[in-house]
Amino acid sequence: MAFGWIDEQAEARRRAGLVRTLRPRPAQSPLLDLASNDYLGLARHPEVTAGAAEAARRWGGGATGSRLVTGTTELHGELERELADFCGFESALVLSSGYAANLAAVTALAPYGSLVVSDAGNHASLIDGCRLARGTTQVVPHVDPDAVRKALGTHDGPAVTVSDTVFSVDGDAAPLAGLALACREYGAGLIVDDAHGLGVLGDGGRGAPHAAGLAGAPDVVVTVTLSKSLGSQGGAVLGPAAVIDHLINAARTFIFDTGLAPAAAGAALAALRLLRREPGRAARAREVATALHTRLTAEGLSAVRPDAAVVSVRAPSPERAVRWAADCREAGLAVGCFRPPSVPDGVSRLRLTARADLTEEQIEHAVDVISRNR
Amino acid sequence: MAFGWIDEQAEARRRAGLVRTLRPRPAQSPLLDLASNDYLGLARHPEVTAGAAEAARRWGGGATGSRLVTGTTELHGELERELADFCGFESALVLSSGYAANLAAVTALAPYGSLVVSDAGNHASLIDGCRLARGTTQVVPHVDPDAVRKALGTHDGPAVTVSDTVFSVDGDAAPLAGLALACREYGAGLIVDDAHGLGVLGDGGRGAPHAAGLAGAPDVVVTVTLSKSLGSQGGAVLGPAAVIDHLINAARTFIFDTGLAPAAAGAALAALRLLRREPGRAARAREVATALHTRLTAEGLSAVRPDAAVVSVRAPSPERAVRWAADCREAGLAVGCFRPPSVPDGVSRLRLTARADLTEEQIEHAVDVISRNR
Repeated sequence: MAFGWIDEQAEARRRAGLVRTLRPRPAQSPLLDLASNDYLGLARHPEVTAGAAEAARRWGGGATGSRLVTGTTELHGELERELADFCGFESALVLSSGYAANLAAVTALAPYGSLVVSDAGNHASLIDGCRLARGTTQVVPHVDPDAVRKALGTHDGPAVTVSDTVFSVDGDAAPLAGLALACREYGAGLIVDDAHGLGVLGDGGRGAPHAAGLAGAPDVVVTVTLSKSLGSQGGAVLGPAAVIDHLINAARTFIFDTGLAPAAAGAALAALRLLRREPGRAARAREVATALHTRLTAEGLSAVRPDAAVVSVRAPSPERAVRWAADCREAGLAVGCFRPPSVPDGVSRLRLTARADLTEEQIEHAVDVISRNR
Repeated sequence: MAFGWIDEQAEARRRAGLVRTLRPRPAQSPLLDLASNDYLGLARHPEVTAGAAEAARRWGGGATGSRLVTGTTELHGELERELADFCGFESALVLSSGYAANLAAVTALAPYGSLVVSDAGNHASLIDGCRLARGTTQVVPHVDPDAVRKALGTHDGPAVTVSDTVFSVDGDAAPLAGLALACREYGAGLIVDDAHGLGVLGDGGRGAPHAAGLAGAPDVVVTVTLSKSLGSQGGAVLGPAAVIDHLINAARTFIFDTGLAPAAAGAALAALRLLRREPGRAARAREVATALHTRLTAEGLSAVRPDAAVVSVRAPSPERAVRWAADCREAGLAVGCFRPPSVPDGVSRLRLTARADLTEEQIEHAVDVISRNR
């Protein structure tokens, strides 16, 4: 049988307790959500859902083609201008997902003969970008500007360093200023994925590069997602206009993909405007994260001090992590459960997201449930 | 400067007349659209836009997380069941784009040590899937089952053949029955991208694999897009339940991507239900394509006989193609213009899409404008 080899892998997964299954949720879930990436609680905000609905009515259910053919509406242009302006970059380019944005940025900016220096903890989409790029990739130890410096020193020709700004699994931040410095010493570009920073870090949620003083820098390119703090779907690349023009001409996941659906552009735009009007939401997400961390640690749990809105709690084993998350769910609390093979270091953990709209009571309740079910 | 090398490439593009620019369109375009992939004219259909709007209101602006965490709603489940049922497959898995679906299917089904046989005319997303896959890729001549047979004969171990069902550039169809036969002789799997077949080919638009008698086959996996005939955004993989389970556990562009936005799922579901109710739309798209081809050929133009709803007209050079498309636009007609480097054979062409909702007058007018401006 053509796909017979799949059965063996499925059996191995079963034996290892690593089977993943989908759990469709109802529209009104009874669970308290500390598992989603809806950091600002905007996905269900009436202005955001109205932005989606209005855009679908006005512009249609889909973009109808590649961004280069019929898939660019004035709505896409508006979103790109406002995103670039908000984050402090010259230009922005919206793609159908953050994954596509990362593939676009890395592949288009790492041509044949170039070097890509990649943090060992980078997200799968950056790793796939490195794999697809024509340049050569060198993986360096996690959050280590000196290792970046050393790698860049081995190469002659175009080079980029690629890193998450906030790492998805542990919620720790990259040393952006140090990375930029290392890159500048060698004339290399810096590409950072601010998926977990936008809306949470920086002045009013302008993101980690803005906080690090890198907004608008000619040698820095930022990717973001519209599907986390902005409660929508899609991704974007921010940077100098010349870089964005280059992507329009060279990035395969931009050129050969259908444009982002108008509803997603409309929802993201509504969320962005809301965030501008209510900049305190970003700081509140960070406050909630700190509160969660402080209380979980006080309960004797091992949690990583959060640099943004992700709080990672160590579990003793994959099985125990799965059981722990299941028990929390049983008690009405949704938490993420990360385990091999989707964690680079093999350590299983519960992953909590600190939504800006959590109340003090909800935070206390969540800590209580997690601690009780350890 | 870090990205200084980009300027040289930009200059080379300018000299070659190959600069691509975005042209944002208004909500109500005065142009007659023969450029989009909205084959059934459903992107602006009130039921489809209402499906998007209603889904956003009910489920939120985004899916809020990976499909494996919080990103699977009951709406996603519903869409997957109805898609699988409509196309005649056991299971379906919805992703954020057709690009992501192709990367998922090819990478997850071409493990280390396997062979991927890939048609030379395949879409960029299938090619990137081959590049990312751990297996070894062998590119074979366009639409050539004997070449596939020969390639498969060189390999021992798991193998898949990968092909578009309808090729995007020329609108020609793959010999699906022949490919399936070749694969079966060697126990290989067949992965086909039905992006341009779904909604256009097969009984009531059930797609090219259904028309070829391959629906539900244990050794066939189909990818589709929700962004063309279904007027939305997103992609899906259809196949045996064991294959879909494997993708849930192994496909990086599924696991590490945010789930499709509810509005896109809602729009696609509404379009699918409409197509079930009005199956004549599929046949009408094919009729329009034939009418366009017949009349363009009668005008002495060189057009490929369409197998689906794409009509490709040859242009003498990239410059002339660009000029031709611009003149058509000036005259109120939007047509696609394909030229290097996005055409594999270096031949520039106008690409027309035969929307099912074009009237006789519109078809006549389009042919007149294209012919007059040649």
